[in-house]
Amino acid sequence: MTSTALQRSTASTVPAPPTAARILRRCRELAAPALAEAVDGLHPWVAEMAGYALGRCEVGGAPADHSQGKGVRQALAVLGAEIVSGPAGAGVPGAVAVELVHTFSLLHDDIMDGDALRRGRPALWKAYGTGPAVLAGDALFALGVETLALAPHAGFTVRQLTTALGDLVRGQADDLLFADRPWSGPEAVGVREYETMAEGKTGALLGCALALGARLAGAPGRTVTVLDRAGRHLGVAFQIADDVLGIWGDPAVTGKPVHGDLRQGKKTLPVLAALSAPGHSELAELLAASHALDGGGLRRAAALVERAGGRTTAVREARRHLAAADVLLTGVPLAPGPVAELRTVLSALADRTI
Amino acid sequence: MTSTALQRSTASTVPAPPTAARILRRCRELAAPALAEAVDGLHPWVAEMAGYALGRCEVGGAPADHSQGKGVRQALAVLGAEIVSGPAGAGVPGAVAVELVHTFSLLHDDIMDGDALRRGRPALWKAYGTGPAVLAGDALFALGVETLALAPHAGFTVRQLTTALGDLVRGQADDLLFADRPWSGPEAVGVREYETMAEGKTGALLGCALALGARLAGAPGRTVTVLDRAGRHLGVAFQIADDVLGIWGDPAVTGKPVHGDLRQGKKTLPVLAALSAPGHSELAELLAASHALDGGGLRRAAALVERAGGRTTAVREARRHLAAADVLLTGVPLAPGPVAELRTVLSALADRTI
Repeated sequence: MTSTALQRSTASTVPAPPTAARILRRCRELAAPALAEAVDGLHPWVAEMAGYALGRCEVGGAPADHSQGKGVRQALAVLGAEIVSGPAGAGVPGAVAVELVHTFSLLHDDIMDGDALRRGRPALWKAYGTGPAVLAGDALFALGVETLALAPHAGFTVRQLTTALGDLVRGQADDLLFADRPWSGPEAVGVREYETMAEGKTGALLGCALALGARLAGAPGRTVTVLDRAGRHLGVAFQIADDVLGIWGDPAVTGKPVHGDLRQGKKTLPVLAALSAPGHSELAELLAASHALDGGGLRRAAALVERAGGRTTAVREARRHLAAADVLLTGVPLAPGPVAELRTVLSALADRTI
Repeated sequence: MTSTALQRSTASTVPAPPTAARILRRCRELAAPALAEAVDGLHPWVAEMAGYALGRCEVGGAPADHSQGKGVRQALAVLGAEIVSGPAGAGVPGAVAVELVHTFSLLHDDIMDGDALRRGRPALWKAYGTGPAVLAGDALFALGVETLALAPHAGFTVRQLTTALGDLVRGQADDLLFADRPWSGPEAVGVREYETMAEGKTGALLGCALALGARLAGAPGRTVTVLDRAGRHLGVAFQIADDVLGIWGDPAVTGKPVHGDLRQGKKTLPVLAALSAPGHSELAELLAASHALDGGGLRRAAALVERAGGRTTAVREARRHLAAADVLLTGVPLAPGPVAELRTVLSALADRTI
């Protein structure tokens, strides 16, 4: 046997580990038929809005192939089933439910935050109007709950979802209230307070996704709880990474305007961390006038956040939460192959390379 | 024994049957502690908005005693338990769930319909802003589902609720789309089509309330299904009665502006029925300009609807649906005393005397 033949043989028996993008695609494709079936059962007009929100069609219903989102939450539900040695398909009702609930929360959050763009297209409320977007969100919310109610262990899984939804609302409420809080002084938003908000707003549904997948595959309560907590830490890391992109990200990649979060005066972790460092008076003054800042002012504010260590702290906090998720995953017996795939997805998420 | 003493003795042993208002109050008081406990567990800001929506507090949180709504849905859940010979308390989780879901749907419907007033006060979106009102609705929605998920028979009752929610969304979607349909011609909204919308928008949750109460009290599937259908007929009757009030009701009683539905150009059953009668050209012209009509024009439109038989048809249709509900209730074995109370409530509702 030549060395070339040996290499070829090795290559065919020990394939390279799948990339995060490939894992996400596999999970998306697994859940896609059930997701499509659920949405197609809606009122035709509402189904069109849902299709638009999911990137499957244009306004009017013509097919489209816009970015459909990475499908992180549905992937976590499928992987949640696999890491407890269940079949991937067991996690599908959980995948469909969390994807529907996530889409609902984006629709309503865009209304609340006044965000006119979503994945480079007009947000649903801009394309169809506020009222219809409220209704489409409600429909997806109800459909997500119904999907679990029709699957095994309905009592348990619906409770898991409603707990996550409660935390999601709590996180969104805090986030909205943060807007009216001052940038500095005793009423300023602290870094820990911010992370609690992020756990609710972003972590609760990620934790729920993993937990639902595991529960649907028959995992015991302790494993389900640990996975929920791991997903919540991941969510905080993910939210912080999003904050970093919201200031320093490339609009071509993020689909959002450059320095958008600074322009909107959003209280994100890099800024809050920078303001908690000494000597930030110029930054505080700039932020107080953030709505009126031009491109130069916004660049200056971003540079001041970075100089005060806001970016470094944000990256460190994201890594800390990712490490906490990692420790949790090490503490319960999980299937080695699938858990390696899960770790691949988690790392890529926290680095925002997918 | 004197005849006066005899009368007094009879009065004390055979009390007058309770009025609808008294039955509703009893059910409200029974469910109130659980409802308050559920709402008080929300995020404080969201709990304040929920309290405002429920008429329990003012903006800012100061206690208030505004009209809290009649509590029709919660009463149906309690009576649903009693008519299948269960204890009233068994229906309470259902009562709390439907009251929360009803309140959620009012909050979001007021946004969609642009209604600025609710029970004589600013609607929540007017008092707190659209975004916060969307969020408060979402919170009540999630809390309603959670209430059932934590009670017995969770799988079944959550499915019952999500089916109702699906129909509610479908009815609301049709109602919103009706606004863009013409008043006459082949694309006009028909009376039957209207009633299908009303069954979804109003009937689904009333049917769900009765069905949940019965199911929570252990009733068999057939009884639960029949009660659901009876409640849906009641809902159509109730919606039509509401339409009649929306044109001819006293603003002091309804808390809404006089001729409000005509001014908004809403497609309600009396108007649709009038337009389906021959010779309605003046009415159709007036309605096409309804937004611009002054008080005299609106009075003229209302008179034309009445003259074309729209009011008579509406009352007849409401009675027909009430009779259908009655027939259904006669077809299953139900406890005589509680079912008499239920009939008292149904009649009062359809007559809008409560």
